[in-house]
Amino acid sequence: MTEHTGPTKPLLAVLAGQTAHPPPIWLMRQAGRYLPEYRKVRAEAPDFLAFCLAPELATEVTLQPIRRYAFDAAILFSDILVPPFALGHPVRFEAGEGPVLARVTGRADIEALDLARARSVWAPVMETVRRLRAALPPQVALIGFAGAPFTVAAYMVEGGGSRDFAAARRMAYAQPELFAALVARLEEATLAYLCEQAEAGAEALMLFDSWAGVLSPSQFRTWVMAPTARLVCALRARFPHLPIIGFPRGAGPMLADYVATTGVNAAGVDTALPAAWVAAMLPAGKAGQGNLDPMALVAGGAALRQEAERLLQDIRDKPWIFNLGHGIVPETPPDHVAELIAIVRSAR
Amino acid sequence: MTEHTGPTKPLLAVLAGQTAHPPPIWLMRQAGRYLPEYRKVRAEAPDFLAFCLAPELATEVTLQPIRRYAFDAAILFSDILVPPFALGHPVRFEAGEGPVLARVTGRADIEALDLARARSVWAPVMETVRRLRAALPPQVALIGFAGAPFTVAAYMVEGGGSRDFAAARRMAYAQPELFAALVARLEEATLAYLCEQAEAGAEALMLFDSWAGVLSPSQFRTWVMAPTARLVCALRARFPHLPIIGFPRGAGPMLADYVATTGVNAAGVDTALPAAWVAAMLPAGKAGQGNLDPMALVAGGAALRQEAERLLQDIRDKPWIFNLGHGIVPETPPDHVAELIAIVRSAR
Repeated sequence: MTEHTGPTKPLLAVLAGQTAHPPPIWLMRQAGRYLPEYRKVRAEAPDFLAFCLAPELATEVTLQPIRRYAFDAAILFSDILVPPFALGHPVRFEAGEGPVLARVTGRADIEALDLARARSVWAPVMETVRRLRAALPPQVALIGFAGAPFTVAAYMVEGGGSRDFAAARRMAYAQPELFAALVARLEEATLAYLCEQAEAGAEALMLFDSWAGVLSPSQFRTWVMAPTARLVCALRARFPHLPIIGFPRGAGPMLADYVATTGVNAAGVDTALPAAWVAAMLPAGKAGQGNLDPMALVAGGAALRQEAERLLQDIRDKPWIFNLGHGIVPETPPDHVAELIAIVRSAR
Repeated sequence: MTEHTGPTKPLLAVLAGQTAHPPPIWLMRQAGRYLPEYRKVRAEAPDFLAFCLAPELATEVTLQPIRRYAFDAAILFSDILVPPFALGHPVRFEAGEGPVLARVTGRADIEALDLARARSVWAPVMETVRRLRAALPPQVALIGFAGAPFTVAAYMVEGGGSRDFAAARRMAYAQPELFAALVARLEEATLAYLCEQAEAGAEALMLFDSWAGVLSPSQFRTWVMAPTARLVCALRARFPHLPIIGFPRGAGPMLADYVATTGVNAAGVDTALPAAWVAAMLPAGKAGQGNLDPMALVAGGAALRQEAERLLQDIRDKPWIFNLGHGIVPETPPDHVAELIAIVRSAR
């Protein structure tokens, strides 16, 4: 192998449908508050959106967990609410309170979303992607991402986070044309945003549909599966070899339909799903990604070993990317992450 | 049919494994804030736990939706946190904030739970059950209920409601013996509480495991399925013909295992699950209960008709109790409930 051939990246091999044992590993929110070096950089940028849009800072925190743990993938440090903010929708992050957004209530709020403006606002994100691609070690894959249209729309209708996104679900039933217009506008923006990331060097793309699980099956088909299928189709037309990971959190048994229908290369798998069930239902060539309980990682010790080893067994004959089932939580001891990596990489 | 034979109650027939079309119907939280007559009674009792423990008031609000809509079942008006309160654990309800509990952190908090005390504190609940049984029309079944041990334990460790019950999940991994001791104590109390309800006249019992969905599959087996199986076994030994409905909300594909393992007669089905998938996986003789989206009921009109008719088709060849997938929400127009009943009862 010469220097210029470049090694095959384990994560991309799995996304291409290959089985690997031990599996490649990265963790959702691996760049985050559980790391002291992250908290130090974060303290320099009090505004969270400005932090996401500062290439130097975003590049640095994306690389921190790669240096510390040698994960198989880096995921762009950003937030799923950067695109609506870039589109001109009022979004701010209040310390300890989460995101606060203007509420979409009518056509005017949707027509105000400005894609030309968005491209200039999110330009620094593309600079971060370029810097990351240049800085990452050759075996580490770079994942770009966006929030899926339904989840971003849900935040925009609700005006922030919510346990059940009742306002968004209500609009989806009572004013389906209005909600569809919002989702369509976000689909267009998400496509543009992800295409730019791919052009800037992202080697895989992930769609976070974090609140898909609040929907009934018929609404899930309409607002999660259909927009995702259209996005995957449009991305594939532009970038035929770029793998796409879809993560409809809380999909439950609908995940089988989602994978079969949307065309994603891999399914993000949340903590509640039995990995063995997912592994059994995955069509040939499709990969899974997940789904260790983040709380097992907080606990560490025997609980962590038991849960991680169970998962390794459940998925060993399938293309699978070892990950958590949800983002790593701030109280996770960094040593436990090292423990987990040792367990996974010593799997036989 | 003579007056003394009494009619067969449609809900109990379905719980015995019979198919009915149209299916019997009741709605979770059918006695609640969406009804003006409820708000009037509730205003008389500012303290929510005192309200639950006042037989005259609890009986009245339980009967209100039966009078208005002629549902096929009444469910005792109470709260899943009445048993921990009765056991001597500090629980209070703050207006607009939900329940606030003392946090269980060690053995002493568990040993302080006093079942003898609980029996006297919850005695008014049994009086309510007796009054209801005497007052209900002959075709209406009376459902008693309790929170399942995991869900009640989760509130007690967390100190209240939570999006993800992180503290409880963490204790379950990091101090499994402590969490098991709490669950075991609650199992014992729940058994006593449900036995008293059965003796007082409840004709079916429902176990609400509202937060089961935050658990990984292995934790779901340990903290949801195993305690439920033991409770069902103990209840059946005492009341062999009393049907039990288990509702592990958010169970996803684990619901199949739950039904097969716990011995419940019927599974509560949340909004996220495809009813057709549930109907297909239910073993012979087991019933489903659910799972219309409460937001479709808020929306009313075409959306409500479409969702209700879809559900009626999905479940028509199975023993099924028509219900929501989650409690009715306060902003539901009472007229929409009447619409829904008309749709269901005219199903052909």
